[in-house]
Amino acid sequence: FSCGSFSDRWYKMGVYNRVPTDIYKVELGKAITPEMVDKVLSTGEYDLITVTHNETSTGITNPIEAIGEVVKKYDDIIYCVDAVSSAGGIKIEVDKCHIDICITSVQKSLGLPPGMSICTFSEKAMRRAQKVPFRGVYFDLLAMYEYIINKNHQYPSTPSLSHMFALNFQLDQILKEGLDNRFKRHEEMANLVRTWAKDHFKIYTDTNYLSNTLTVIENTKGISVCELNQKLQERGFVIANGYGDLKEKTFRISHMGDYTVDDIEELLKNINDILELRL
Amino acid sequence: FSCGSFSDRWYKMGVYNRVPTDIYKVELGKAITPEMVDKVLSTGEYDLITVTHNETSTGITNPIEAIGEVVKKYDDIIYCVDAVSSAGGIKIEVDKCHIDICITSVQKSLGLPPGMSICTFSEKAMRRAQKVPFRGVYFDLLAMYEYIINKNHQYPSTPSLSHMFALNFQLDQILKEGLDNRFKRHEEMANLVRTWAKDHFKIYTDTNYLSNTLTVIENTKGISVCELNQKLQERGFVIANGYGDLKEKTFRISHMGDYTVDDIEELLKNINDILELRL
Repeated sequence: FSCGSFSDRWYKMGVYNRVPTDIYKVELGKAITPEMVDKVLSTGEYDLITVTHNETSTGITNPIEAIGEVVKKYDDIIYCVDAVSSAGGIKIEVDKCHIDICITSVQKSLGLPPGMSICTFSEKAMRRAQKVPFRGVYFDLLAMYEYIINKNHQYPSTPSLSHMFALNFQLDQILKEGLDNRFKRHEEMANLVRTWAKDHFKIYTDTNYLSNTLTVIENTKGISVCELNQKLQERGFVIANGYGDLKEKTFRISHMGDYTVDDIEELLKNINDILELRL
Repeated sequence: FSCGSFSDRWYKMGVYNRVPTDIYKVELGKAITPEMVDKVLSTGEYDLITVTHNETSTGITNPIEAIGEVVKKYDDIIYCVDAVSSAGGIKIEVDKCHIDICITSVQKSLGLPPGMSICTFSEKAMRRAQKVPFRGVYFDLLAMYEYIINKNHQYPSTPSLSHMFALNFQLDQILKEGLDNRFKRHEEMANLVRTWAKDHFKIYTDTNYLSNTLTVIENTKGISVCELNQKLQERGFVIANGYGDLKEKTFRISHMGDYTVDDIEELLKNINDILELRL
């Protein structure tokens, strides 16, 4: 299922790894719905589905829990979720959502330098992996899991230890903040940006599925996003231009990780100042 | 071609990725020779060969330059070299050795924390890759190269930036030391360990192909390597037990990266002290 550039990448992975793969695309800015998933799975043609939780090219957060309810009806479907930009910023309960494989990375809502991936996987995914004869080496989760269990949490090849130490530190910080507080902080930052976007521009994304970690804004004033960003950078801030075809047509403000409500207020104040925006 | 656990891994990669693969094994502690490679390539049955430059399970450094002379005779062979534990400690001239793909990692002779791989590849390897339709996504060197060239050294997915900054710093340090000085330092450390090993134990490896980054020593005195290592660790040192089947039968002393001749002397003095070794 694809709703943008990052969910397209799942499809690419299937194709480039010679796995029979189909793609179900929705219009940019729209979400994947449980109904779509049900329609596709009812054909009985699939073994595995992939959903990108938070699509940062369009600012959509897909309803992974409601989709999980649909997946639950189909015993033999493996449900994979890309939570790269949401984990740590938006609540994800993999068991409750019936997610079999949930992958994320450390450099988005977890707020660490890039370079390490993290994943959870279910017993159902393990049993399915046992039936796949050619699983590669580097990304063979089953072999990795068995090694970790049998060798007291060592890995089959040397992992990025400095990231592991950093993650250990950061997870302590996250627990200190409190998970619910952290998710609430992301929501508050998102609300600030949404209100500002509605006042001065327009939110690009279907408002029923807005992301709490990033907002995509339609460039209704025809500003030069590139120039705005250059001026922001001189002041120590940075936003993102639209992704791919949406460049200059949209721009993106991220509000995730260790950013605070104050940081976002400061950013918006600076954008107002540069663009001379007044209510 | 395999001369130990790490060269076995190349074979495993082929098999687990559903690539038709054969393995040519030599006795543990022996090297891969140009004659063996010539014999295998003359069958005309292969497209690509893999050689591990420095096999840390047995302390062998394979003669990659002489093997390259053989490969050169066979126009359509892609020559892959694993230089994980040698690059930065032993001179490697990929063009002179006719190496098409040379991979290494940052945590061995380059002396950085683990978590990033580095590779070189030839135009011949690029042209060959263009003929391979299913190259995966994450390790598709061709796609990565094209992206880097077209997007001013950006990557198709976020790389481990902190490792890149660290590597940039470390490469400056290495150039400051001077490449030849660095290789010479590795040789001097190796000579120290070899002399000590011959005086008190026995070198496990074929002495014509001894590694300058690591020495594997036969446990001729039947000491407990595990106990020795525990006592060394109390004093701030660490050596490695034998790898796999060679555990306790051998032990391994690494002399690579940023270690100095003084460090190695201090280590050997401490081993002498713990084991009460005297000449």
